[in-house]
Amino acid sequence: MQTVNIGIIGGGTVGGGVVRALRRNGALMASRLDVRLRVARIAVRSRRKKRAVKLPADLLTTDWREIVEDPKIDLVVELMGGTTTAKEVVLAALRAGKPVVTANKALLAFHGEKLFAASEKSGANLYYEASVAGGIPIIKLLREGLIGNHVTELYGILNGTCNFILTQMQENGMGFDEAVAEAQAQGFAEADPSMDVDGHDAAHKVGILASLAHGFWVKPKRVFTEGIRHVTPQDLEFADQLGYRIKLLGTVKAAKDAPVQVTMYPALVPKSHVLASVGGVYNAIYLKGDVLGDTLYYGQGAGQDATASAVLGDIADAALDLKHDSPERVRAFTPHEANGEIGAIDDVVNSYYLRLNVLDRPGVLNQVASTLAKARISIASVLQPEGQEGKNVLLALMLHAAPEASMAKALKAIGKLAAVKKPTMIRVENF
Amino acid sequence: MQTVNIGIIGGGTVGGGVVRALRRNGALMASRLDVRLRVARIAVRSRRKKRAVKLPADLLTTDWREIVEDPKIDLVVELMGGTTTAKEVVLAALRAGKPVVTANKALLAFHGEKLFAASEKSGANLYYEASVAGGIPIIKLLREGLIGNHVTELYGILNGTCNFILTQMQENGMGFDEAVAEAQAQGFAEADPSMDVDGHDAAHKVGILASLAHGFWVKPKRVFTEGIRHVTPQDLEFADQLGYRIKLLGTVKAAKDAPVQVTMYPALVPKSHVLASVGGVYNAIYLKGDVLGDTLYYGQGAGQDATASAVLGDIADAALDLKHDSPERVRAFTPHEANGEIGAIDDVVNSYYLRLNVLDRPGVLNQVASTLAKARISIASVLQPEGQEGKNVLLALMLHAAPEASMAKALKAIGKLAAVKKPTMIRVENF
Repeated sequence: MQTVNIGIIGGGTVGGGVVRALRRNGALMASRLDVRLRVARIAVRSRRKKRAVKLPADLLTTDWREIVEDPKIDLVVELMGGTTTAKEVVLAALRAGKPVVTANKALLAFHGEKLFAASEKSGANLYYEASVAGGIPIIKLLREGLIGNHVTELYGILNGTCNFILTQMQENGMGFDEAVAEAQAQGFAEADPSMDVDGHDAAHKVGILASLAHGFWVKPKRVFTEGIRHVTPQDLEFADQLGYRIKLLGTVKAAKDAPVQVTMYPALVPKSHVLASVGGVYNAIYLKGDVLGDTLYYGQGAGQDATASAVLGDIADAALDLKHDSPERVRAFTPHEANGEIGAIDDVVNSYYLRLNVLDRPGVLNQVASTLAKARISIASVLQPEGQEGKNVLLALMLHAAPEASMAKALKAIGKLAAVKKPTMIRVENF
Repeated sequence: MQTVNIGIIGGGTVGGGVVRALRRNGALMASRLDVRLRVARIAVRSRRKKRAVKLPADLLTTDWREIVEDPKIDLVVELMGGTTTAKEVVLAALRAGKPVVTANKALLAFHGEKLFAASEKSGANLYYEASVAGGIPIIKLLREGLIGNHVTELYGILNGTCNFILTQMQENGMGFDEAVAEAQAQGFAEADPSMDVDGHDAAHKVGILASLAHGFWVKPKRVFTEGIRHVTPQDLEFADQLGYRIKLLGTVKAAKDAPVQVTMYPALVPKSHVLASVGGVYNAIYLKGDVLGDTLYYGQGAGQDATASAVLGDIADAALDLKHDSPERVRAFTPHEANGEIGAIDDVVNSYYLRLNVLDRPGVLNQVASTLAKARISIASVLQPEGQEGKNVLLALMLHAAPEASMAKALKAIGKLAAVKKPTMIRVENF
């Protein structure tokens, strides 16, 4: 049986998870693949660090170049994270002709094109299943299983941290800060949670999915991104009464002959839709293919083990490439929609939820309504709960579909009304 | 650009769907694959038949051998159905060294081993994504994306016809016969619906999934199979009150060092479980991997287009194999659990729902309870709706976990009680 020697760069959570999973299921994988997978070297930042998964001391090095430059290493697995040294590592490995597996979504999102060019040039493939949606093999699905489809619509809950926070706020009535603290306590959020809660992490992922679906690379700055900091328990409560949940939702929509919409923002999702029931740290991708119809993939979006499962799938593909000498069978990225372009957010047509904190006096609703009317936005329903005391009351408006540009204008005008404090808009996705 | 010449055997619903999908998305696939896919020949039963999708007259033949024996044909797509001529076609194509794509679950289920042996011998691969769960690429997921996992549990709603019938009975209060007639009227059920409603079609599919997950071929007769004919609207009503839906559910369970359970029967599924909300003709597979955790795949389980999407995915894989000369990269079937075996149904431990039609007189429930107690089965709850008139009443019992052998014995004894007519048992799956 052929042996593939694997060099792993990064001995942290994900690296440890991959080593442990290979220990557990390496023999099973060998019998399925007819290839032996051998962890030959692991590059770590410090040899002395205490680790949850013990790494064999004789395999460790603190110099990643020892792995990338070692002719006995067949396959490089980059699990260090970050976008500076990691970029150097991946480029060096590809240039040395070694296939690379990475779990690094930020690296892909920012430097994908450069990495793919290096892969193309040297003929060494780059696999990145673990970069999006943890254990859900969505990259493989888009590139292979669903290859016969135009993906007309794709919706993704792609950040487990935000989904956990929103679920806590929904189910346990927590405020945003309290829910973030809970996520941190349970290990689902970083000390600085901004990459997650401001939507950037999820935006990187939806950009990767949009790129694969439409065949042109979507850079992070082209993804209109809003986080979840402005979502309050009141919004979740109002949404519930109106028949919705609130999710941080990535969207890729491709109407015929129109630019592609690629966005990441919180959205009201009807409770009857399958995505509304995706709770906690789970991820899900719901998509429509023009041949296939609609389909959903659901699983754990992050965490040591789900990520390890995706990395193992990539290692298997790379090992089969080595065995069958077919490194370019499924290329890292295949451009296939030459004139693809991203539409401006202003042109997107959405429906909206509006939460207003208004002075409790006659005519205020009328002012708001006429401001909206001026922007040609009509009101679908108004929710003003009884029993609010004091001089301010909260109310929620559901608005009919209108272009984002009109909504932005109306929102600005409403914000200037003397009787209105803090208007908050959240989009509504009716699928 | 390389061209792959495709010969399609079967010009019916699925064949027409594949031709139409290739017309629609062939150029897209070519740009993704860098391979041109050309339908070179189509074998049909009759040249004169009226078809929903028009097939070019100059491509038609009524002799499948003209395709299989034509040296210009690179790839054979078998979409004729059945297990006799289809078997001959697939074996002849494989023996001629041509890769084959098939959507034929019955052929796979009954003759898989023979076909795989022929594939192994000639080195021509056999692809069969469309045989299970329509457009959900579950075969690819099990063989590739999830390859780093032991699949410890798998549950599947795999027959769209039965799921449609049960959904109609649930939502519209239809009786079984009425729901079958509705399914036939909408084109979801055959004139003779027995392959579907008796569970055989779904049993073939769960057998294929079990085989892929555990690496030894599971023949249809080894899959304990029960259909849905005995499920009544009362059962769906009782189940609803108890917090459940009823689904025709395939199950593959592999406890450590125990034989694998592979079964297909109707089961009560808690409403809170994601599978309970899979309605209509949809299919879904929920599985647990020992590394991955739990995950769900959902989509249209049958129909011309969903099946075509799966066939197109296989055609793409076979085309890449031809381009990169890697026909055995992912083999048709890889045995990998030499001592795998299927457990006897008698040893399976389940929970149960029991519907009884009893004489309305004192002591009857006591008789039933003591019969159950003798079999060491304890009652979890009893539901006897008020307002039943006449000398017979319906009641439902929920029973705690017990071996199937004990339940079968108890059921027989209860059936013999003079005061009880038609005891009906449905299993309960609590995941």
